[in-house]
Amino acid sequence: MICEILNVGTELLLGDIINTDGAFIARELAAIGYSSYHQSTVGDNPARLREAIRVALGRCDVLILTGGLGPTCDDITKVAVADEFGLKMKLNEEVLDEIKAYFAAVNRVMTENNISQAMIPEGATIFHNKWGTAPGIAVCGEIGGETKHAILLPGPPSECEPMFLECAKPYLLNMSDDVIYSLNLHLRDIGESAAEQILRPIMEEYTNPTVAPYALEHETRIRVTARAKDIESAKAMCRDMKKIIESGEAGKYIYCETDTPFGAKNATVLTLLEELRKNGKTFATAESCTAGMISARVGDIPGASDVLLGGIVSYANEVKENVLGVPHEVLVQYGAVSEQCAAKMAEGARRVTGAGITVSVTGIAGPDGGTATKPVGMVCFGLADEKGTYMETKYFGSKRNRAKIRLLTTMYAMMLVIRRLRGEI
Amino acid sequence: MICEILNVGTELLLGDIINTDGAFIARELAAIGYSSYHQSTVGDNPARLREAIRVALGRCDVLILTGGLGPTCDDITKVAVADEFGLKMKLNEEVLDEIKAYFAAVNRVMTENNISQAMIPEGATIFHNKWGTAPGIAVCGEIGGETKHAILLPGPPSECEPMFLECAKPYLLNMSDDVIYSLNLHLRDIGESAAEQILRPIMEEYTNPTVAPYALEHETRIRVTARAKDIESAKAMCRDMKKIIESGEAGKYIYCETDTPFGAKNATVLTLLEELRKNGKTFATAESCTAGMISARVGDIPGASDVLLGGIVSYANEVKENVLGVPHEVLVQYGAVSEQCAAKMAEGARRVTGAGITVSVTGIAGPDGGTATKPVGMVCFGLADEKGTYMETKYFGSKRNRAKIRLLTTMYAMMLVIRRLRGEI
Repeated sequence: MICEILNVGTELLLGDIINTDGAFIARELAAIGYSSYHQSTVGDNPARLREAIRVALGRCDVLILTGGLGPTCDDITKVAVADEFGLKMKLNEEVLDEIKAYFAAVNRVMTENNISQAMIPEGATIFHNKWGTAPGIAVCGEIGGETKHAILLPGPPSECEPMFLECAKPYLLNMSDDVIYSLNLHLRDIGESAAEQILRPIMEEYTNPTVAPYALEHETRIRVTARAKDIESAKAMCRDMKKIIESGEAGKYIYCETDTPFGAKNATVLTLLEELRKNGKTFATAESCTAGMISARVGDIPGASDVLLGGIVSYANEVKENVLGVPHEVLVQYGAVSEQCAAKMAEGARRVTGAGITVSVTGIAGPDGGTATKPVGMVCFGLADEKGTYMETKYFGSKRNRAKIRLLTTMYAMMLVIRRLRGEI
Repeated sequence: MICEILNVGTELLLGDIINTDGAFIARELAAIGYSSYHQSTVGDNPARLREAIRVALGRCDVLILTGGLGPTCDDITKVAVADEFGLKMKLNEEVLDEIKAYFAAVNRVMTENNISQAMIPEGATIFHNKWGTAPGIAVCGEIGGETKHAILLPGPPSECEPMFLECAKPYLLNMSDDVIYSLNLHLRDIGESAAEQILRPIMEEYTNPTVAPYALEHETRIRVTARAKDIESAKAMCRDMKKIIESGEAGKYIYCETDTPFGAKNATVLTLLEELRKNGKTFATAESCTAGMISARVGDIPGASDVLLGGIVSYANEVKENVLGVPHEVLVQYGAVSEQCAAKMAEGARRVTGAGITVSVTGIAGPDGGTATKPVGMVCFGLADEKGTYMETKYFGSKRNRAKIRLLTTMYAMMLVIRRLRGEI
């Protein structure tokens, strides 16, 4: 089954937004074993869009289109695809009701041009959109004597990604008898190329399950994907492969496993919550350079309130002193970016919130503020719990930008708490 | 001058990496007034690559290729382009010396396949690569009776981006007279489709500047783009169009303008920082459901430390009481999600941090925890400053997911502070 991705949007052609939908769908297609040889982007121009659809349908079985479904672009993608398949557009009352309900639920007035979103090619499969207004659509028909499919998804990643997973992926999997199961092994303290070097023999020896390392912004992930006749067999194949990987050199880097997109995306924070619950500990933070990113990341997870008490964002030294009780002498003698200050911040957060374990960060996120002895990318961490106080300094490198340094700091802080709760430090 | 971008790399087709080169080059092309109607991705497959080059050169004047220049892909891009232009490959001694020097400098052994990187199409312009080994190349020739250009850049963004700016951009600017300038008008309290309905007559009447609304996750943006012979004329055309838009119904929704990608992305927080500085006020937060997102968002901006003091993440009621001093009776009588609690949180944050103005949020982010009187999506806000305390309740809708509700809450809280500092509330 050959797929092709066509991204529609002038904002993509202008480089206003980065095409993350394309990479997301491409990866998902690869994971379920569908080939993809071309990916294209065109703007909101009907003639060029039609031409691109025609060319793509000439060389693939399933064309997946993203974008061009919103009310302002007159749904040009939908109309162009309907024309290519020789289908008429029809008002779909059910979709119209959903759009009306959506606007009512978000307390906004529905305008005339939203009605066009309820116009659907006849005979299309409708993917209901729980994340926005424009429904996704799948059409199927004969073109040039061959069966072709087109799947249309909204452009915003917050709608495109969940709709691909919940609607388009099952639709695609229905075309085949096989089921696919993926297990993610999450690694710390190792980069993608080093992981790839270790795994190379396994990657080359096995084709089902496949084994592939992925570099995320802050960690490396090994994705094991099995194809089988039923889900239990696919799971068993992944579990067997996991044992092979664990028994090799890569084993010592694995800190958790996940098998859902939500889990994969939130592996570190979910592991942190699990360890806190297992240890019966509440948690709080004291953040300087991350300014609340750690507590916000924990708060991303529904139900985090059973262990997350809160935190102190002590961006200014006055807050470090007055709220967290960092002694003035520590700030004068060692500076705000020091292990001594990090220790006092963590202890202070534990004292004022009453949490079982706290983590603190204070560092130089850049681009300015670095010195020879305290360069951009230097971050001091503190941990406080009933066992005492732990301190550590990390250098994330002055070549990295502010956003990357703060993200790595956030993830590393959570990993320190995990290590502490596991008795590793 | 019509450009087209062709990204070469199987890792892009598999979704292993996100295509940031494409967006980067597209934005740079738009900025210098070069049109781009198509962008494509193909893998490291010679036959499909040749076909893609042929199709692209058939519809553009300048084809910009990224990737497929490294030693492991056998430089397939270079050879395919040389063939299409009917050029022979020749060993370039100067490039070979550079590659040898690079390997000597990084203390690595140069392998045989690195020599292929010094093979260059005859007559090509060479872009020396200060950031890696593979040089960039520009070739020019007649194809089908028309003058065509091809520019080849390495794939890794750390090489592609500086090489585009330092080598390819000057090469392109030598070909044209026009420049492009874009002005973003940022709107609040109005959705994309409503904005589009208001702007429709202007969008249809004008082609230079163009006017287009874009929906961001939390606001609507109008982009005004002018093309002219020089930057001052283009800016003046955008300013004139801004006056037309401002004098119409859309005017009352505009809260700021930006003209850089960084500004556009951070419009709300940059406006907040500007208003704080203008008013000589320091800032702090008291966050419950956002758990630090507001302070983290402010901390995203380099130099925020002149006004951001910090904040209290009071996820648990104990922290609301013990750190922020919310009276126990308020929590018992009105609950944590109440305007009364929000008011006490904001006042408490102001007291403990000493900030000039504070904002607080407490709400139900979901998916659980909603009731008939306090549904998911209900958020109470508080503002405290020398004028007193302001409270407001917003309903972001139970259909929205947790991430979206927290994002909207974060942006709305910042907007409340902006309104307060502007004397609107």
